[in-house]
Amino acid sequence: MPMSDPATALQDTIDDLVTANHILFREGIVDAFGHVTVRHPSNPSHYLMARSMQPVFVAGTDIVELNAESKPAANEAPAVSLERFIHGEIYRVRRDVTAIVHSHAAAVLPFSVTRDTPLRAICHTAGFLGRGAPIFEIRDFAGESSNLLVQNNQLGAALAGSLGKSAVVLMRGHGFTVVGGSLQEAVYNAINTVLNARVEMDAIRLGNITYLTEGEAATVSKLHNNSLNRSWEVWAKRAAGELP
Amino acid sequence: MPMSDPATALQDTIDDLVTANHILFREGIVDAFGHVTVRHPSNPSHYLMARSMQPVFVAGTDIVELNAESKPAANEAPAVSLERFIHGEIYRVRRDVTAIVHSHAAAVLPFSVTRDTPLRAICHTAGFLGRGAPIFEIRDFAGESSNLLVQNNQLGAALAGSLGKSAVVLMRGHGFTVVGGSLQEAVYNAINTVLNARVEMDAIRLGNITYLTEGEAATVSKLHNNSLNRSWEVWAKRAAGELP
Amino acid sequence: MPMSDPATALQDTIDDLVTANHILFREGIVDAFGHVTVRHPSNPSHYLMARSMQPVFVAGTDIVELNAESKPAANEAPAVSLERFIHGEIYRVRRDVTAIVHSHAAAVLPFSVTRDTPLRAICHTAGFLGRGAPIFEIRDFAGESSNLLVQNNQLGAALAGSLGKSAVVLMRGHGFTVVGGSLQEAVYNAINTVLNARVEMDAIRLGNITYLTEGEAATVSKLHNNSLNRSWEVWAKRAAGELP
Amino acid sequence: MPMSDPATALQDTIDDLVTANHILFREGIVDAFGHVTVRHPSNPSHYLMARSMQPVFVAGTDIVELNAESKPAANEAPAVSLERFIHGEIYRVRRDVTAIVHSHAAAVLPFSVTRDTPLRAICHTAGFLGRGAPIFEIRDFAGESSNLLVQNNQLGAALAGSLGKSAVVLMRGHGFTVVGGSLQEAVYNAINTVLNARVEMDAIRLGNITYLTEGEAATVSKLHNNSLNRSWEVWAKRAAGELP
Repeated sequence: MPMSDPATALQDTIDDLVTANHILFREGIVDAFGHVTVRHPSNPSHYLMARSMQPVFVAGTDIVELNAESKPAANEAPAVSLERFIHGEIYRVRRDVTAIVHSHAAAVLPFSVTRDTPLRAICHTAGFLGRGAPIFEIRDFAGESSNLLVQNNQLGAALAGSLGKSAVVLMRGHGFTVVGGSLQEAVYNAINTVLNARVEMDAIRLGNITYLTEGEAATVSKLHNNSLNRSWEVWAKRAAGELP
Repeated sequence: MPMSDPATALQDTIDDLVTANHILFREGIVDAFGHVTVRHPSNPSHYLMARSMQPVFVAGTDIVELNAESKPAANEAPAVSLERFIHGEIYRVRRDVTAIVHSHAAAVLPFSVTRDTPLRAICHTAGFLGRGAPIFEIRDFAGESSNLLVQNNQLGAALAGSLGKSAVVLMRGHGFTVVGGSLQEAVYNAINTVLNARVEMDAIRLGNITYLTEGEAATVSKLHNNSLNRSWEVWAKRAAGELP
Repeated sequence: MPMSDPATALQDTIDDLVTANHILFREGIVDAFGHVTVRHPSNPSHYLMARSMQPVFVAGTDIVELNAESKPAANEAPAVSLERFIHGEIYRVRRDVTAIVHSHAAAVLPFSVTRDTPLRAICHTAGFLGRGAPIFEIRDFAGESSNLLVQNNQLGAALAGSLGKSAVVLMRGHGFTVVGGSLQEAVYNAINTVLNARVEMDAIRLGNITYLTEGEAATVSKLHNNSLNRSWEVWAKRAAGELP
Repeated sequence: MPMSDPATALQDTIDDLVTANHILFREGIVDAFGHVTVRHPSNPSHYLMARSMQPVFVAGTDIVELNAESKPAANEAPAVSLERFIHGEIYRVRRDVTAIVHSHAAAVLPFSVTRDTPLRAICHTAGFLGRGAPIFEIRDFAGESSNLLVQNNQLGAALAGSLGKSAVVLMRGHGFTVVGGSLQEAVYNAINTVLNARVEMDAIRLGNITYLTEGEAATVSKLHNNSLNRSWEVWAKRAAGELP
């Protein structure tokens, strides 16, 4: 939306962020926990995130602006998520990233607790997994008795380091974080990470698997906005209770 | 409906095609993507398909007539699916086919990415699988870095070649395509392909499996229209929100 | 209900049979196919069954009385199920049986197609499986190319022979049939057969299993009517759309 | 709520207990069976429990006060659960426990019937499993032909002995019992026991698993009331039909 004025662009972004929260709940990517953020449309070193609360209840007035250190930009801000550093530190080093989702989805967790069977791109809707999904072992950074949460900038930076140039980083025993070039893409990638995990979990029972080649993964991941919007519209209707 | 006039037959076919779109969404065979088509009732070299859109939102006014080359028959037509060639090329070589469903259903995908455990007829509701479900490896036709989509007539013809005389062709890493002698049969076959895949996935854990014999598969697949309608009525009611 | 007059007893039985049809649909035991029957309360050689139709649409006026040969007792009767012989022949030889359910539920089907891992009682709610669940291989009676359906008295008698004194008989590639001393018990046993199959399917992945002993199975299967009614009430409310 | 008067505290506790019953039904932890209890807020040797009935139908007037021997405190009380001794005997020896849930959830049952793959803490939401989940083999206490129910104080005491200092005890072929320092925590632990079981069931297929260390389990299980309330609010809304 390059032509819209900053205030309109901000309001549109907030509206989409609210919808993203509701979609992610309805599709089982987040429950009472988990979060989604987006870069501030006119101040790209800042990002927008709901205050610390359940995604399904998020409204526009719950959105908080956080700065590059993941501190609220306003003086009087509500409580924000303990794990906001996941987002702040990825935005810092990944200028190509516009939106981020953090999830505890049960279908992906098994791939986070073993290195014997990597999560790999198997479906044409999950080409973004083509670079692989590295595992962030927080034990290497926070010791043997941590609470597994990414609750400061140092751990956030370590997570961003594990992510590297990939789209998805698995967090051992905790969940995963996935990025996108837009809110629509981050939500799409989150939902299709779960889908690919389910398919791979079943496929490994059947025999040797033909995964996507690097070339295929790269090609299928060049999704057009039209494709992303097409899924988003269905998910948004379902989140609004208008579809089963 | 041999006695009905062409206009009525066309309208009835369009109505059924709309219902098929809604059923396939509700039963999880399609999501924002996937499609279903039917031969034109009075011009059998043409077929009918919704314009490029989400199946759950399809209405009668969204149905487009495509010719034997999968080009819109009308001068001014809305955008149509990139993958319509799946349908056009199967209709060309399979005169026994009246309707086709293309799906990305996650339960079937694992069988598309390995040749070690073929999808085979195991349930009496899936006799149509009796000839086997060949795998279409698009890499053999589109190279190592394709987007996996069947987006021209050549790839459509290759897919139709893999299908051969079978009812189902698995598309590696992408989904499957299933045919029927009527819209009701194609929808029934799509839903029961998923069911058979689920049962086989579990059965292989238990030991050696007794699959249907060729004779059994042939016999059970001689379904009467009454049986197809019986399922269709339940699915249509559910798609309309009148059943859980 | 020994004190009620025959007409009231019959109407109560029909009402329960209608509810059983709706429960079995809602709980996923039947879909457009599958059926449930009950002995006629005042003529125990006859039984009651919905005409050939989808269980979820059954109303009291759809219930048909069938005689010991599974022929409609009335001169003008609607079309009845091709597979009614399952019921008639079990009622003939099992005087302890008052109600029967026939299902194609996908969770049980895998156990019907292999003899390597028998379905056995593993949960305290499935003591009725204590005698084992024999497999009816219709190929032994109908040859190599049958439609797998039990569509005459001879096949029904063969099925009843396989069932023997058990509560459940698995039908290879087709489904299962389960009996009970009341409609409530047959429905309970059907739903818990599916549950036990799911638990066993998962348990076999974990290691050696402690199944119920014969003594435990016998003890836990002495269910009081109170327990059966307790489940029935929840299922009936859910079938009526009053519970999620 | 140390400042509230006893009558208010009791009413608040009863209200929460009713909500807990509805949540556990909606989340699939209980069905027509299973139960949840809480210590009496002003008489800690007594506890509160619904009369013998389906959890989803429980209202405030169904709550019964039971004494340390699991007998109703009032002279005229409705029928109470056969298995109330599970609760009474755990409250007796575990002064740190304020609430208890007993469930037959199918996802956990497989871990109760084998000793080859223990249920262990794998997710950061299941740190309470860090001490392990011992298996209560009722056969050791009630013989080879019991009904598997904990239906007297002796069996309740044996179960409490198996539980020891853990948060969860698996009951072979029957279900599990889980404790918490509050109703909110017991419900949270019940739901996350099921979640952890599902993740572990899948993870064991993938290779060697990194479980939580004892230190991690201890750290993540120090959940703040805020976290528990956050989940409880979502579950309560869903149980009330206000969320999908």
